[in-house]
Parts: sequence; structure tokens; C-alpha cells
Amino acid sequence: MKKNPLTDQQQSEIDDIRSTSFQTLRPTVPKLEEILYIPLPVLDHGFIRVVDYMGDDAAIVQAARVSYGKGTKRTRDDSGLINYLMRNWHTSPFEMCEIKLHIKLPIFIARQWIRHRTANVNEYSARYSVLDNEFYIPDAQQLRAQSSNNRQGRGDLLESDEANKVLSILQEDALNSYSHYEEMLNENFSGETIDENKTGLARELARMNLSLSFYTQWYWKIDLHNLMHFLRLRADAHAQWEIREYADVIIEQILKPWLPITYDAFLNYRLGGMQLSEQQLLIVKRLVTGEEIKHNPEEISATEWRELMHKLEIKE
Amino acid sequence: MKKNPLTDQQQSEIDDIRSTSFQTLRPTVPKLEEILYIPLPVLDHGFIRVVDYMGDDAAIVQAARVSYGKGTKRTRDDSGLINYLMRNWHTSPFEMCEIKLHIKLPIFIARQWIRHRTANVNEYSARYSVLDNEFYIPDAQQLRAQSSNNRQGRGDLLESDEANKVLSILQEDALNSYSHYEEMLNENFSGETIDENKTGLARELARMNLSLSFYTQWYWKIDLHNLMHFLRLRADAHAQWEIREYADVIIEQILKPWLPITYDAFLNYRLGGMQLSEQQLLIVKRLVTGEEIKHNPEEISATEWRELMHKLEIKE
Amino acid sequence: MKKNPLTDQQQSEIDDIRSTSFQTLRPTVPKLEEILYIPLPVLDHGFIRVVDYMGDDAAIVQAARVSYGKGTKRTRDDSGLINYLMRNWHTSPFEMCEIKLHIKLPIFIARQWIRHRTANVNEYSARYSVLDNEFYIPDAQQLRAQSSNNRQGRGDLLESDEANKVLSILQEDALNSYSHYEEMLNENFSGETIDENKTGLARELARMNLSLSFYTQWYWKIDLHNLMHFLRLRADAHAQWEIREYADVIIEQILKPWLPITYDAFLNYRLGGMQLSEQQLLIVKRLVTGEEIKHNPEEISATEWRELMHKLEIKE
Amino acid sequence: MKKNPLTDQQQSEIDDIRSTSFQTLRPTVPKLEEILYIPLPVLDHGFIRVVDYMGDDAAIVQAARVSYGKGTKRTRDDSGLINYLMRNWHTSPFEMCEIKLHIKLPIFIARQWIRHRTANVNEYSARYSVLDNEFYIPDAQQLRAQSSNNRQGRGDLLESDEANKVLSILQEDALNSYSHYEEMLNENFSGETIDENKTGLARELARMNLSLSFYTQWYWKIDLHNLMHFLRLRADAHAQWEIREYADVIIEQILKPWLPITYDAFLNYRLGGMQLSEQQLLIVKRLVTGEEIKHNPEEISATEWRELMHKLEIKE
Repeated sequence: MKKNPLTDQQQSEIDDIRSTSFQTLRPTVPKLEEILYIPLPVLDHGFIRVVDYMGDDAAIVQAARVSYGKGTKRTRDDSGLINYLMRNWHTSPFEMCEIKLHIKLPIFIARQWIRHRTANVNEYSARYSVLDNEFYIPDAQQLRAQSSNNRQGRGDLLESDEANKVLSILQEDALNSYSHYEEMLNENFSGETIDENKTGLARELARMNLSLSFYTQWYWKIDLHNLMHFLRLRADAHAQWEIREYADVIIEQILKPWLPITYDAFLNYRLGGMQLSEQQLLIVKRLVTGEEIKHNPEEISATEWRELMHKLEIKE
Repeated sequence: MKKNPLTDQQQSEIDDIRSTSFQTLRPTVPKLEEILYIPLPVLDHGFIRVVDYMGDDAAIVQAARVSYGKGTKRTRDDSGLINYLMRNWHTSPFEMCEIKLHIKLPIFIARQWIRHRTANVNEYSARYSVLDNEFYIPDAQQLRAQSSNNRQGRGDLLESDEANKVLSILQEDALNSYSHYEEMLNENFSGETIDENKTGLARELARMNLSLSFYTQWYWKIDLHNLMHFLRLRADAHAQWEIREYADVIIEQILKPWLPITYDAFLNYRLGGMQLSEQQLLIVKRLVTGEEIKHNPEEISATEWRELMHKLEIKE
Repeated sequence: MKKNPLTDQQQSEIDDIRSTSFQTLRPTVPKLEEILYIPLPVLDHGFIRVVDYMGDDAAIVQAARVSYGKGTKRTRDDSGLINYLMRNWHTSPFEMCEIKLHIKLPIFIARQWIRHRTANVNEYSARYSVLDNEFYIPDAQQLRAQSSNNRQGRGDLLESDEANKVLSILQEDALNSYSHYEEMLNENFSGETIDENKTGLARELARMNLSLSFYTQWYWKIDLHNLMHFLRLRADAHAQWEIREYADVIIEQILKPWLPITYDAFLNYRLGGMQLSEQQLLIVKRLVTGEEIKHNPEEISATEWRELMHKLEIKE
Repeated sequence: MKKNPLTDQQQSEIDDIRSTSFQTLRPTVPKLEEILYIPLPVLDHGFIRVVDYMGDDAAIVQAARVSYGKGTKRTRDDSGLINYLMRNWHTSPFEMCEIKLHIKLPIFIARQWIRHRTANVNEYSARYSVLDNEFYIPDAQQLRAQSSNNRQGRGDLLESDEANKVLSILQEDALNSYSHYEEMLNENFSGETIDENKTGLARELARMNLSLSFYTQWYWKIDLHNLMHFLRLRADAHAQWEIREYADVIIEQILKPWLPITYDAFLNYRLGGMQLSEQQLLIVKRLVTGEEIKHNPEEISATEWRELMHKLEIKE
């Protein structure tokens, strides 16, 4: 599914920018420098590129201590403090790291993404420029029916006939809408005029014929605390599969090499584990005394009961 | 262009909610109560409805004074203070008013709108629900070419042949994409299954075939300071015409009846007038002494020179 | 400890503003109207007054559904949806309610409070006005030593001799600093000049002699989602006792009458219950199978072990 | 007035952190590297240290273009685009630069500073640690009376007798409050117990005896757009002199070497020049035609008239 998402021109610009290095006194993370500027593929045409970053694990400690120099001398101390901060929701030291990403993503995913407000965004302007002829076509294994128990998710795989029909609709309509986009602009993607007798429609209007499956791209800059908040919500099983693909790449290919201590704490205290409601906690208290409990709807809703049994791996 | 944007069912819900009034000790604005819940039409299918509001002109004064009761006794004092606050960018008292709007707007406009981050938004979910078959078709007089001097705006009107072609493309592609949307969902808008032998694609996926011209809707809540910031940018001549239509309705049909004193100050200190750069100020200083000045590119750019001459109504 | 925190003039302004009611079509909460504008005492001179509010429980449902009229007809449906939203961190519908409070609080608490950035604040200006001669003196039972296990909290009560010494220092230094404040201003609190031969120091400078125990006041406006976030952190046992006093008043005397359904969900899903880390969840899974477990520092830190045993009421 | 604000220990930590440099592919600004970590003195004990930064002038262009490599090849192109962006309030590319500062400042200034919400802050905790015995004493030339025409600023210098009295009050009260702070803590600044028979009051309480003139410190991280917004308001003649001292250091000693092109544009389009109200613009239009105008209160307020005459250097 994943192809090299770059043109030769883009690849050459990236090679160029990676060819010069500088001396700096700032905290520097060699493992992240290795992938700096290089696109990490996501979906069929998307990517995430780290364009810049500020801080490392030690910078979190340094800020928490309001230090004049480095925070601590020993990695082990850093680890203890970072775990303490994460566990107790002392979020301000995590805000002291920042990352800037260049992301290419389908518009319907971009619309979910942008709901996270505490970030800086600069999007490619379709008022000013012509959009690329690139749109998202899901893998057949992603073509699923509306879920019956999660009213905003997907459930079973479509049969192959129905899936094929869907794929051909998506493909043909996208090609058709792009072709009409060019016709209305009176300009093809290379910038050549199509018909000398026409003036072409303004870009800000013609774009409205494109579908939500088309790719857009933006620079997105966010501090570490808000990044982890985004990741916790968007790597969740309830998030749409396509945005989870982006979240997973950020977690495993960016957060992990950038901030290995914070990454471990994030898995332990945010992604893993479980938030117990007061009612669930009451059930757990009784379970650990050896009491056998059946679901009682007066005590707890069926959904929360099921979630608890599932998380505790208790079979009923 | 503007039609009644409501179904009978929606109209009846609004009639119902408008039929009961309550006693309150809160600041209340009778002129705004008159239009509460009623859609103000924008574009061909869009609207803005005031769903709730907090505060009035006097509440700004009350907050600025950190008062125990009302801010002042006399409207004239309120006016003096509000003008002072607006002129001197004392923004926090304006943040003490809040408004909640229900807005129906095309997706490509929604994507511009959402870039204003300091607001609360709850959007109709196309993961959970099926979108309406409503899309934006511009008036012929809005079909303009890319502007030659403003690289992200529109310029001259299209010739009627070209305009007609554009309208038919927009119309047909939108109808086609909605029809395919229903087919992929295997469900029409009334919720009836189309083909019993199919399962239908999940909503969160099928929606990606719809184009950016389709209407979405959301609840949008914002404080007065940030609302005026939004309005200043989006009622500007550089903003896309379609979003200006929304901004103008908010200014003239909502802000004006809600907060008449603030409305006047907003026109005087924000929308009207002009921001002079240091270089422009130097030119103005010389002009008022009677000096005759020609454009000198070493002193000021051509763009700023033109803007200044235009604003001062000086013909060259 | 709690006295009537109002002067006669302030009381009369409040009586005045409470004497006129208006007709409104907006959602209105009679239980909150009962206390509107009336100060709820906190600490020795502080208070919280509800100055305005927007929305009720039904307004959350209405926003979640992007409704044209009311959200639902039946309170029971509202309750189910609100619990669902709270449990699954669907926060945007909660942002659709807003409350405006007038708060009087000691400066050292105000400095903690203001760290919550997603709120609107308008503070009484000590550049413009003279501050009141009111400062916080803790009850003797709040005079505690630095905690030995919580490095930023308090532990055991001071002996009465030491406590009395502390009280007299706090009292005398505050009186002294206010008296010098007046002397530097050359103006007493009633606005009378003290010495005709002096000019008096600017207020923005003289205030710096006052201590952090002095009371300030502000208008504070916040949406419900961010209010609950504030309350979760500030009603927590790790928060400073004085700010918890404010948080508790908001929860029990404001949130509860304003939004009874949301209040219940907030207690169940936010204040009550427990966040289990991945490591804690592993322990719980083993405990519910009947396994007897002792603390193993390779599996989990001593702090998390203790917290877990405490929450599950397991004695070791 | 300005002393070396560091202890030997702090100086040695800074020397240490400046002794190691790294290779990076990130945008790097040699002129800013020169002062990285080094305190720039402000007031009598305060400072600003650049702890980290992200981006340079070219990074603004790169983001505005959503580039794969560098934004442009030529500095001249960068300059044109940056001026265009600044002039037209295209703020998002400026948000793509970030800076992290360590700031030491008096508490009464910190309270103004923190009102700028769009920043990340980690403050030295007086719940956890003991504050330094350092407080702000103004220069005699800063001891001014309340201004008669600006109701929240300062006016004429105090006579020397009155000034001396003020200085001795500020000095003595601060020393006295710190000495009582230590006594209540039962611990001096070096961490030695004062009286073995006492337990000492918790730090979170004892601190409330300190006055607002004491220094605190924090890490403060902000993007360039919001930094310039802060600077525009806090370098303004209406801002308190003490905070202007900090703003001026940031502008001249940090912004200028970091981003020389943006610095120039900031001076031209933000700090310099003038915002004309609609009424002022009408007057200017008439002035440039040679019309002689006297102030007419029906046309424009006296304040705005005075401001305009002052800015245009017109004598009446």
C-alpha cells in the first residue's frame, strides 16, 4: 500500500537540506537527526516528516527543576522524575519540548486532526496553488460495514463484490472530480493552459469540486504534552483507522527515538492501563476479596461491566 | 439565492423551543431574543442561528470594573469606557460576553473557519450520521477568474459560456457523488436500505466521496473578543467571498442588535480606519505639511504606496 | 472562619441587581438563579459569586446532537448520553456550557489558579485602584509542617506555641505592609490624602510591598469542560488546601444545582474511581484470580503499589 | 543597577552546558548560539536566558510554502515574503518558530506576564523549594507619582525625601518579611534548621508572608507570533516600566540576532506606525488636502485628536 510519496524534485530538495550540518549548543538527539526531513510513509500517498524539534528527555527534567544547566547528571534520575511527572499529571514540563512535522493526509482525516486546537498549523493553500492529483483509496481489508455495537465505527468486512464496487466508485469519482477541477481551472497540474479561449475559474472556487479523499498537506507544530494528548485519543481503538495509522507512526517511529524515557512512561501511564470509574472500582474491590459477582444493572451499566471483564480477562 | 433552509420538522422544533419563556436575573437583550433560534439565511442553503448568548454591553463594563452590581448607571458612561477599552486593546472585558451559534456552511468554508482555534465547536458527525444532500452552487456573478494582482483571490467575471459549463460541472458532480455515497452506504437519506443483499460501507469511509461543496453544520461558541478578531479577518476584502457572507451576517444581524455600543466601537476601531506602517506614517507626516510626494521605492514598497494613496483618496 | 465578606454598599448593589428579572427564551436553571450574584463564602474573606451562566444539562445533549430544537424530550435520555460522553472523553459538547464567576481569593492562590489558561479573566487592577486591607490568616488547624512523604504538601499540625508565633507573624507583617502601602501612596483606603506635602507613589509600584496573603478579585469565565478539568486537579488531595476549598464550593454549591446530571457523571468518571497504570492493571488482573501478591520492586514502584493497595483497601 | 545575577554554582553549570556542542541538521542561528544559556541582566536581580530555540527567518518562509526543502534560495526572497506575511496578518508561518527562555522577575511583574496565555510555563515551586532572598528595589528615578492623565501609570518623580522614605520602607519590609519567612520555615536559605525544638511551617504556607517584590523564576516557551504579540503590548508606553525593561531586552538582544528579517518587519509593521481609527482616518484625509482643521468634539474625542496631532507632529 505504501509507495515512495515523493517526486524526484522533492527527493532532491530533501537530499540537499540533509547535506549540511551545523554546530549547536542545543540539546540534540542523534536518533532523531537520522530521520530528520525524511518522509515516513502512511496510507497510500501520505507521509509524516520531522522538520524540526526542540528538547530531549533531559530538557523535561531541566524545566521541571528550573535549572541553570542540565537537569541532572544521571539518566536514572531523569527516568524517576519523568515517571513521577507523568503519573501525577504535572504537565507543564512536558510542554517544554516541541516538534514540527510536515504531514500529507486525506482531507477527511485533516478535518478530524484539526480539532486539536493547541497546535500551530500552516496548510498548503488551495486558494493560492493547485492541489495534487492524489487521493486516498482504502485497502480492500479496510472496507467494512457500519459497526453494530460502536455507532461511529466500522464492523465486518464487505463481501468482495460489494468491496470491488466501492473501490471502483471511489476511484472513478476521484479521477472525474480532478479532471473537472483542471477543466474549470483551465489549467492542468503542470500549469499549462488548456484552452486559450477560456479564462479559468479562481482556485478558491474550483477546489470545491474535489472530494474529501484528496490529500492535503501541512506543517504542524505542537508541544509534547499536547502531542501525547492527541496520540492518546487518536491511537485509541475508537478512533478512525486511518488517523490511527498516523498516530502509530508518530508513537513508534518518532516519539520513541526522540524521547525514549517519556515514550516508556507514556505507554505505561497513558496508552496502557485503564481508567476505572467509581462504580468499576467498587466492583474491583469486591473481586479482589474473592467475591463472585454477576452483572447487576443497578450497580453498573452493561457497557462498563463488559469493558471491565474484558480488561481484567475475566470470562463469564 | 437564499431559500428557507429548514425542513418542516426543523421549523416545528424551533417553533416549539421559542414557545416557552423563562424568568431570569441574567442580563438579557430583548432585540436578540427576537431572533433567538431563528435561522438567518446565508448562501444557497446555509444559515446562522443564535442558540444562546451571555452578557450585554453593560456586562463588559461590569467586568472591567470587577463590579458587585451593574457596572454603571448610565449608558453614556458605558459607551465611554467601551470605546476606551477597544481603542487601547484592553481585551479581557470583551471576553466576558459569549455567544453560541448553530451554523450550516459548505465544507470548504468550514475548513477556513476552523482555523480560528479559540472557540468551542461541536460538528455534526459524518461517522455517526448520514449527511444531507445539500451542496453549494455559486451564483453566476460569483464565478470569477483567478485574480491577477491578489494571488489568492478572484478577479473578473467568467464569460457566460464558461460560467454555464462550470455550473453544470459543479451541479452534476455533486449529484453524482451524493448518489454514489448512498449506493456505498446502501442506504438512502430517509434511512431505507437500498439492496437487501448488501451490507453497506461504514459512514466514516463513504463520506470521503463527497465533495468540499457539501454542507456541514456545527455549534460554534466563542467569546466576544475572539469573535471580533474572527470578524475583522473574515469580513476583510482579502477573505474568500463566501466566508465574508457569513461574517457580514454576524456583524449586521447579530452583533449589532446584541451589543450596539460595542458594534459602533468595532466599526470605528477595527473594521474602519487603517493600520499605518512606520514607513506609511512617515509619508503621511510629509503629506500633511503640504509636501508633494511621488512614489520612491527606496522609501516604501509599491503595494504599500498604492494602499495609502487609495485609503487617503489621493489620485496620482 | 467565614464571615459575611461584603460591605453594606456591595450588599446593596447585589440586592439591587437581584431585584429585576427578565423574560428569556434561553435555557434557564431556577436552582442557579436562586444563588445568582450572591457570594458563597470561602476562607476568611474570600467568596465565589455566580455572575452569569449559559446552558443546562439539556444544552449539552442539544449540542452533541447539533439539534434544531431541544436535544431530547426525556431527562432519562439526556442522562444516558451525558454519561456516554463523559466516559468516552467526548469533550466538545461540555464546552457548550459556560459560567462566569466573581472570585475573591488570596494572591498566592490566584497565582496557582491562573495557571489554567483556557479561561477568561479580568482582574481588579492594582495599577488603577487601591487594594483592600484584607489578607488571609489560616485557621490554627491549617498550620502544618512540610509533609515528609509528599514533598510539596503539608503534614503534621504545629504545636500550639509555634502555631501562635506563626499567626502573630502573619498578622503583624500583613498589617505593617498595608500601613506602609498607604503611607507610600500617601492615601488611605477611603481615598483621603495623608500628608498634603507629599505626592504619593504610583499605585503600580506601591503594591509591591503587599504580601502574597492579600486578597485580590477577578471575574473568571470558563466553559464546563475546562471547569471540570480545573476541578479535577484542584479538588485533588495533592492540591493546596486553600484552593481545594474553592474547588469544593464550586463542585457542591454551583456545579450540583446548575447541572445535576453532569455533576453525577463527573463524580463517577472523574473525581471518583482511579487511573490504573499498565503495571497496576497487571497486578489487579492477578489479584482477581485469587493470587496472593507481595510488592516486587521489579514489577512496580513502591509508590504505585501503596496507592493501589490503598485504593483497593487491601491491608498488607 | 544591573549586577551579575548568578551564583558561582550557577555560573559553573552554565559554563559546563556551553562547553559541549553537537552536530545538527536543524536550522541553526550562530548569533543566537553565542548567547545561548547566558543570562541577559534586567532590573536589579532579574535576567533572561535563551535556553533553546527552533527555526530561523528561512523557517518562516519554508512553512509558508509548505516546502520539502528550504523555503527559498535567496535571502531577498525571504525578506519580501516575510514582510508580506507580517503586513497582511498571515500569522501561522510565524508560529512555526519557537523560543524557550529562563526568566527571573519580580512576582508583581510575573503576574502581568502570565496573563499572556498562549505560552508554556514552568515556574519554580515555592511549595516544594525555599525562595531566594532577592527582591526588587526600584532606582530612585523610577519612583514616580500616580500619573494625572494616564490613570494606571506613573507621572512625576518623587521629591528626594519622599523617595528616600519609600526606598527604606521597601527595603526594610522585604528584609523583615524574608527573615520571618525563614523563622516560620524554621530553616534558613542554606537549608539549616534554626531551632531544633520546632518543626517549621509548610513552605506552601510560609511563602504567603513574602511580598510581591520578591523574585521568582520560570521557564517560558512561546511561538514567534505570540511572542511578538506579547512584545507589542509590553513594550508599549502604557505598559509598566519594569515589564518594558524585559520586553526591550527580548526585542533588542534576542529577537534581533535570532531573526533579523522578522525583527525589521516587526518594527515597521507592529511597533512603529500607527493604528488610525475611522474617525482619525477622516481627519487625515482632510489634512492631506491642505485643509486646516481644529478639534471638533463632535467629530473625534479629545484623546484621539491629541494622539493624532502628536503622531503627525502637528503643533496646534
